[in-house]
Amino acid sequence: MSTTNTQVRLAARPSGLPKAADWDILEEPLPEPGDGEFAVEISHLSLDPAMRGWMNAGASYIEPVDVGAVMRAGGVGAVTASRHPGFAVGEHVVGAFGVQEHALSDGAGVSKVDPSLAPLPTYLGTLGMSGMTAYFALLDVGRPEAGNTVVVSGAAGAVGNVAGQIARIKGCRVIGIAGGDEKCRWLTDELGFDAAINYKHQDVTRTLRELAPEGIDVYFDNVGGDILDAALTRLARGARIIICGAVSQYNATEAFKGPANYMALLVARASMTGMVVFDYAPRFPEAARELAGWMVDGSLISREHVVEGGVRAFPDALLKLFAGENTGKLVLRVGVG
Amino acid sequence: MSTTNTQVRLAARPSGLPKAADWDILEEPLPEPGDGEFAVEISHLSLDPAMRGWMNAGASYIEPVDVGAVMRAGGVGAVTASRHPGFAVGEHVVGAFGVQEHALSDGAGVSKVDPSLAPLPTYLGTLGMSGMTAYFALLDVGRPEAGNTVVVSGAAGAVGNVAGQIARIKGCRVIGIAGGDEKCRWLTDELGFDAAINYKHQDVTRTLRELAPEGIDVYFDNVGGDILDAALTRLARGARIIICGAVSQYNATEAFKGPANYMALLVARASMTGMVVFDYAPRFPEAARELAGWMVDGSLISREHVVEGGVRAFPDALLKLFAGENTGKLVLRVGVG
Repeated sequence: MSTTNTQVRLAARPSGLPKAADWDILEEPLPEPGDGEFAVEISHLSLDPAMRGWMNAGASYIEPVDVGAVMRAGGVGAVTASRHPGFAVGEHVVGAFGVQEHALSDGAGVSKVDPSLAPLPTYLGTLGMSGMTAYFALLDVGRPEAGNTVVVSGAAGAVGNVAGQIARIKGCRVIGIAGGDEKCRWLTDELGFDAAINYKHQDVTRTLRELAPEGIDVYFDNVGGDILDAALTRLARGARIIICGAVSQYNATEAFKGPANYMALLVARASMTGMVVFDYAPRFPEAARELAGWMVDGSLISREHVVEGGVRAFPDALLKLFAGENTGKLVLRVGVG
Repeated sequence: MSTTNTQVRLAARPSGLPKAADWDILEEPLPEPGDGEFAVEISHLSLDPAMRGWMNAGASYIEPVDVGAVMRAGGVGAVTASRHPGFAVGEHVVGAFGVQEHALSDGAGVSKVDPSLAPLPTYLGTLGMSGMTAYFALLDVGRPEAGNTVVVSGAAGAVGNVAGQIARIKGCRVIGIAGGDEKCRWLTDELGFDAAINYKHQDVTRTLRELAPEGIDVYFDNVGGDILDAALTRLARGARIIICGAVSQYNATEAFKGPANYMALLVARASMTGMVVFDYAPRFPEAARELAGWMVDGSLISREHVVEGGVRAFPDALLKLFAGENTGKLVLRVGVG
């Protein structure tokens, strides 16, 4: 075990895609837990499109990361020292530990995980915030019914792939939109989506018209931009649009592109509703149990896309999300585990 | 009684604001009711922003008006001849009679009205489709609770003024947005709105920040465009946005302006929902009774802005809506009544 802690701190608020100069990579002495604290050696960090929003100034659903602070990130790891009665050395935990190798915690927002039930990265993805987001956004906001047509954008991403699989499990017809033929094949051939659209090579509006002739009942939006506008042209009466993310817009240096076709909400008597996963925290255990059950019976496949290179690779790894290079949950391997 | 029927027919699909050449004004022989029909002499016609949408080709919540057809419009009038057992000569009726002096009807979608209870134009406005729209959009979609802050755009218009008054009756704090100081004074001094913003001279975003420091719980949108974007910056947690209209955009010759700030829906866990009043037809009598009751007890004021000039004045009268010249329900006087 090293005697220093490598950290990635936010050096500047980016304009557009974050660049190397927006980060500081520092070595600090290994932190020692105080009374009521424990130390975690992080094995994997979660990479999320939402991180880009956390880097901006201004009010949002969560405080921005301060310039100079360790970048916020979910992580999994093992307790290496403890002066906290609830956490023992050797236990595995998941929490918002930040982009660093070692973290101190007082236990707030931290859960224990069992690496014998699922690989640690899965607790950041399908059994972590990505899965929770997919579960509550689809089921609570989207309210799909068996036989509904459900369309998911960013469908090969961490949230989208789980949302589509849950919709399939619930008896819906599921169409995924993703960037690339290989991703589309993964959706249809391995995850059981009924169809997939490669937005890089297919006209999304026209293909949705062909694939969803009766209209879209639930549209799970992770991307915003032109794809949201395309989905708006195909809404079924009473459709529910879930606003979960807008990855196409997070690095825009000009104003966000609003959905020009939003009056389709009126024509279709449809709704567009935002959600933030943290609101559902009291119900995370219930969701995790159900998701794990589907994994055990084989109806839900979890895939993590693990990037090597440790904490120092974080700035480049984050960019993979915006370049659409990941299939499944993008995770950075930090230490052993 | 004349022996001819002046009609306004759609001559061409407009680009931008409808111009004289988009209309044909014709004189036809007076129509004679066939078996099961009756004839109506129209006294007043309803002028609605939605008419602009009906003039466009393409699927919407209602069929477009065909080029060459009599322009669709709600009207009130008196039965002048009848071969229909349910409608007698001398009775007053409201229905979608079209922009003409005389209409034939088989009774579908026609209701009887009592001119001794309210002036005939009120049956096109507060007790007609405008009032129905305000009532169901606010109460069913907006679900305001006492103490909520409700913001209404197009607040001096036919729908907006009723929506704001209902919100006030329901115990909400009501802020109207309108174009002009005189309209704003009408809202606050006569209709009991708590505040009004003249968007032509005030910064809507900044003024909403001052007037709604705790955020907007219900935003009733009749206008779209920049005002919708301003309201999105001030949403309270769980806010409901009602998409009722987008009058700022109906005559746009370029693409609709989508709400660039729509990701505020996510931050606020808010929803944006479209509605079409026709869906509530079975409940119109219930709403009309409640609205009439509020009028009788003085808590709801109905105002009609009556334009003279008969059917031939229709093309110019319609433009008043888009110029914001009306206060209250814009109605065209066609005949006596």
